[in-house]
Amino acid sequence: MSAAPAKVALLGAGRMGQVHGRNAAANPRLDLVYLVDPRPDAAAQLAAALGCPVATLADALADPALAGVLVATSTDTHLDLVLACLEVGKAVFCEKPLDLDPARLRAHARVLANPPAPLYVAFNRRFDPHFRALKTKLDGGAIGTLETLHLISHDPAPPPPSFIPTSGGLFRDFTIHDFDMARWLLGEAPAEVFAWAECLVDPAIAAAGDVDTARLVLRCASGRLCVISNTRRSGYGYDQRVEAYGAKGALMAGNPRLSTLETWSEAGTLAAPIYPSFPARYAASYRAELDHFADVLAGAARPLTGYEASLGALLLADAAARSLREGRLVAVEAP
Amino acid sequence: MSAAPAKVALLGAGRMGQVHGRNAAANPRLDLVYLVDPRPDAAAQLAAALGCPVATLADALADPALAGVLVATSTDTHLDLVLACLEVGKAVFCEKPLDLDPARLRAHARVLANPPAPLYVAFNRRFDPHFRALKTKLDGGAIGTLETLHLISHDPAPPPPSFIPTSGGLFRDFTIHDFDMARWLLGEAPAEVFAWAECLVDPAIAAAGDVDTARLVLRCASGRLCVISNTRRSGYGYDQRVEAYGAKGALMAGNPRLSTLETWSEAGTLAAPIYPSFPARYAASYRAELDHFADVLAGAARPLTGYEASLGALLLADAAARSLREGRLVAVEAP
Amino acid sequence: MSAAPAKVALLGAGRMGQVHGRNAAANPRLDLVYLVDPRPDAAAQLAAALGCPVATLADALADPALAGVLVATSTDTHLDLVLACLEVGKAVFCEKPLDLDPARLRAHARVLANPPAPLYVAFNRRFDPHFRALKTKLDGGAIGTLETLHLISHDPAPPPPSFIPTSGGLFRDFTIHDFDMARWLLGEAPAEVFAWAECLVDPAIAAAGDVDTARLVLRCASGRLCVISNTRRSGYGYDQRVEAYGAKGALMAGNPRLSTLETWSEAGTLAAPIYPSFPARYAASYRAELDHFADVLAGAARPLTGYEASLGALLLADAAARSLREGRLVAVEAP
Amino acid sequence: MSAAPAKVALLGAGRMGQVHGRNAAANPRLDLVYLVDPRPDAAAQLAAALGCPVATLADALADPALAGVLVATSTDTHLDLVLACLEVGKAVFCEKPLDLDPARLRAHARVLANPPAPLYVAFNRRFDPHFRALKTKLDGGAIGTLETLHLISHDPAPPPPSFIPTSGGLFRDFTIHDFDMARWLLGEAPAEVFAWAECLVDPAIAAAGDVDTARLVLRCASGRLCVISNTRRSGYGYDQRVEAYGAKGALMAGNPRLSTLETWSEAGTLAAPIYPSFPARYAASYRAELDHFADVLAGAARPLTGYEASLGALLLADAAARSLREGRLVAVEAP
Repeated sequence: MSAAPAKVALLGAGRMGQVHGRNAAANPRLDLVYLVDPRPDAAAQLAAALGCPVATLADALADPALAGVLVATSTDTHLDLVLACLEVGKAVFCEKPLDLDPARLRAHARVLANPPAPLYVAFNRRFDPHFRALKTKLDGGAIGTLETLHLISHDPAPPPPSFIPTSGGLFRDFTIHDFDMARWLLGEAPAEVFAWAECLVDPAIAAAGDVDTARLVLRCASGRLCVISNTRRSGYGYDQRVEAYGAKGALMAGNPRLSTLETWSEAGTLAAPIYPSFPARYAASYRAELDHFADVLAGAARPLTGYEASLGALLLADAAARSLREGRLVAVEAP
Repeated sequence: MSAAPAKVALLGAGRMGQVHGRNAAANPRLDLVYLVDPRPDAAAQLAAALGCPVATLADALADPALAGVLVATSTDTHLDLVLACLEVGKAVFCEKPLDLDPARLRAHARVLANPPAPLYVAFNRRFDPHFRALKTKLDGGAIGTLETLHLISHDPAPPPPSFIPTSGGLFRDFTIHDFDMARWLLGEAPAEVFAWAECLVDPAIAAAGDVDTARLVLRCASGRLCVISNTRRSGYGYDQRVEAYGAKGALMAGNPRLSTLETWSEAGTLAAPIYPSFPARYAASYRAELDHFADVLAGAARPLTGYEASLGALLLADAAARSLREGRLVAVEAP
Repeated sequence: MSAAPAKVALLGAGRMGQVHGRNAAANPRLDLVYLVDPRPDAAAQLAAALGCPVATLADALADPALAGVLVATSTDTHLDLVLACLEVGKAVFCEKPLDLDPARLRAHARVLANPPAPLYVAFNRRFDPHFRALKTKLDGGAIGTLETLHLISHDPAPPPPSFIPTSGGLFRDFTIHDFDMARWLLGEAPAEVFAWAECLVDPAIAAAGDVDTARLVLRCASGRLCVISNTRRSGYGYDQRVEAYGAKGALMAGNPRLSTLETWSEAGTLAAPIYPSFPARYAASYRAELDHFADVLAGAARPLTGYEASLGALLLADAAARSLREGRLVAVEAP
Repeated sequence: MSAAPAKVALLGAGRMGQVHGRNAAANPRLDLVYLVDPRPDAAAQLAAALGCPVATLADALADPALAGVLVATSTDTHLDLVLACLEVGKAVFCEKPLDLDPARLRAHARVLANPPAPLYVAFNRRFDPHFRALKTKLDGGAIGTLETLHLISHDPAPPPPSFIPTSGGLFRDFTIHDFDMARWLLGEAPAEVFAWAECLVDPAIAAAGDVDTARLVLRCASGRLCVISNTRRSGYGYDQRVEAYGAKGALMAGNPRLSTLETWSEAGTLAAPIYPSFPARYAASYRAELDHFADVLAGAARPLTGYEASLGALLLADAAARSLREGRLVAVEAP
């Protein structure tokens, strides 16, 4: 605790930049010294809120005291920025995904897989305290050998249809988190996938060529099975659960609620709503992954997820898309 | 199981007579052979439903094959009928209370405390599976030494005001069950009681000289404390709970619900209602106490509750009434 | 209620015969008058317990006062017995399945689909109060249009390996209940199925040519999706749940527990176990389906499930088996 | 939000000083500019952690830019410091209690009841999100007229015996929070109190002249009743609950848990533990009350609790102590 805070720069003043920026500013082990965003207004506004100067990327990277960079720009810029940072030896915290194109990732495999500075790709759900408690018990043998897994990820309401064409499709945009969770929790790489998906929520999503409701089954070489449930509109909040079934029992990580309040009436007992959206539901995980990055910068930890996790989740998404297109079981490429 | 069912007679075709009669008819270890009720219509109707002949009390008691009698008549007849049955050596299952007058009970202490045939007084809650599960864990040391107890007994809706003057008052009519539960669960006799009660539900109850909402504290010689919460109108169903706090933890027996159904909406998660009334909530306890009586008739058990439990609960009710009247702490007489 | 109880005969004194026999004996609207079983010992023992004479099938069916027959014999005899009863105009309650061979069922389609007397095939789970509460809310529009369904059916422990070869395989023996539940709850026939199954629990099951762990996805013509989760060994009890997701929310029917008792300690809050096995978990459904049969006999209801439900569930099982064998999505035949 | 943060000083670098200091440092609407503590080591250590200079009280109060003072020193210094701050027109956030002597408080009633600058006394539980959600629903009429209240406040483990003689006794030290909660939630002043308390946890507490287990009943003029349950050792964590019973139903605010994880085994379903101690359980309330103080400093709110709440809770504690001593019901003085 006695070490000086590590100096970091934030790239991107958008939605995720604001989340990571606020958490970095509040983290006593990080010192946010530069904010970089080419849009002057957005940059100035967030900089003021964070009490952090605006800088150019070049100036920030030229600072020898800078230890790390938080990349929270638009997805299509992630990879180039990450490479630029790594090249000058800065540790990187990159908002997910690293890139949406497996071929591009593989083209840079040499540097990304063994980077000259640490590279953390922000699969934040691995840092959610509820899922982490499950993982800890699972690893501790509480339910014996894991046999099947069920991941539930339901959004409260669909995005505007205009978002769909730029999203990369349900599997790359949305299920990608579940693919990473599956890889993390299964303890073994999924070997095959079968995807079933429909457009049940909003015809505009179908018109844009996408689906909004999906059930996928992943199978590992050992026979271990994983079901993923997705919908873009639950009607009851942001539903994020993990169910792990093993030889000796089961572990269930459920939804935290807005409060512990129960209302008892003749209609029954009403528990308070679950969280309505991801920023509130996953607030603790965003803080915890910055703590992890602080550990990485302090040399006390290696990044939990990087190139392999990014490529692995992406290859699962691509296999699922192919399964859906071709109506058949598809083998998953190894990352 | 190979023994022939024990022959029993039912006295009383009213509400509790119907409950016990149906359970007796369905119990393979009991053979309901007589129904006695001076009201011909009521008797005939229940007898038809149960497939059991109507008889006079004299004829029933004269049958040497008759092993036991279920007394489910009006409260003011209980004691005389019980004495008549015991006199001719018939085992008795007597609906609670044995009598409302401690002096009358004591006047017959010799025969009631050491009856010539077994006498069970139906404090049915001791046979509720939820409370019984709690008692079993408590006795097994699950929470170490018991320190405090909280009994919650809330009726869904008040009785008609016309019932109040004949009820014996809240403590004798309603809290009596909680007094028995306290005596059973505390494992030691309450030594003192302080009662606070109000009429908050229905002014007609106050007009009839009674209260409808109460909080009582009982204290044992060891310092062990018990709170009893009563209301005649909950607004959310028939609420019956026990909370036991010990040196190493707590045991909570809650309310079963109409089903396990949960409805998830933006308003929250609605669990199904708890039971709306005592006949449904305590159905299992009524069946179980008849099983207990079958055990008693078979010589396999001694009655769990009889004269001492009846008098003990009644003396607590009287002490509570005095505490309320005099606004002070009152010592409880030993039964 | 004033009608005389309907006279019924019970065929079969085995496990399910005992369940239905006891419920029939306790049901005031049924009068169990014959027990038929070719094994004298089994017949005599159950007849004594039920207080019901043993008879031959011919004698029972020859009784013009006999209204209905409960068929609870071994599976391979069901169809012939059902046909024999229907032929002489007796209403039939047939323990599931009617037959394991779709071709045989179809060969008798004329009489089974429009039987001369009512034919109920005992898919008891439709009468479980928890699932029925869910179905009622679903039909009442509580969650808007149903979109996806999740059926969880996990056995506590696998059967002896010797049972497997005679079982018909996991899908016909075990998942058959879930197939019927899916047909009932989806409100539309599943059009396609994809089945993934493994032997993870007991290698002896694989040696016998079967699987013990499965995940299936059913798809309706409307796009509605249903996941079925099965395992022959949960390690935590008999887990039976339904989750229904709609446009406006979700309905969840969970597991009843042995009691409402909670134990609070430093380790957390321990709720009582769920039921350990199907006879206890589904006891209420067995009673309720006999009530339904009493309604049928009284002319107050038509059988909820018969030939079409039997054939429909069986065709789903066969499609699932084919999907598993061939590793592909399979279209489901209409019954 | 565009206003500059309000400058505040923190008095006290002890346990509560650390809590409030960290929250003040992280609150974007507050600017912590001075830390005052006569113990140089403690002051220097916390100042370093907070990035805030150490100052003398005189220097801090002499700063005309200083808007408010957080008083988190030892209890016996609170009142003098508060008076000193108010005298020079600084708004005050005073850690509870303002003082333990009603006579001293009353001696300064003129200035404390109508202070020259705002005075907030930190009854933090009123800012707990769970209790606040209950209060909001209660005020919104969700359960009709409030009739009875139950406050549960159980510590996980007793303090060291050496703390007891300096604590002021259970009612002033511990129950004081519940007295304030009762005053807040009842919506009317308690008129009478009956207290029953024992030493059941640790004989050393009795040796020090105090009790560790209590049940109290408060009564309002309207007849509304409130039970308070206290123990210094629960054996299962830090148990903080509120139950409010009204004419149309009930509201229950329960214990948040360390996570939503459930472990399903044959023993039952184990929910994660509740919080083990107050700093974790009430962390959100400490942050929220500093937000409230920021509102007060911005002129956007009046202090929720001040002189009257302090004196009111203290007078309840004194009445309870008298009730316990004299074994009788005691009327509560108005503040």
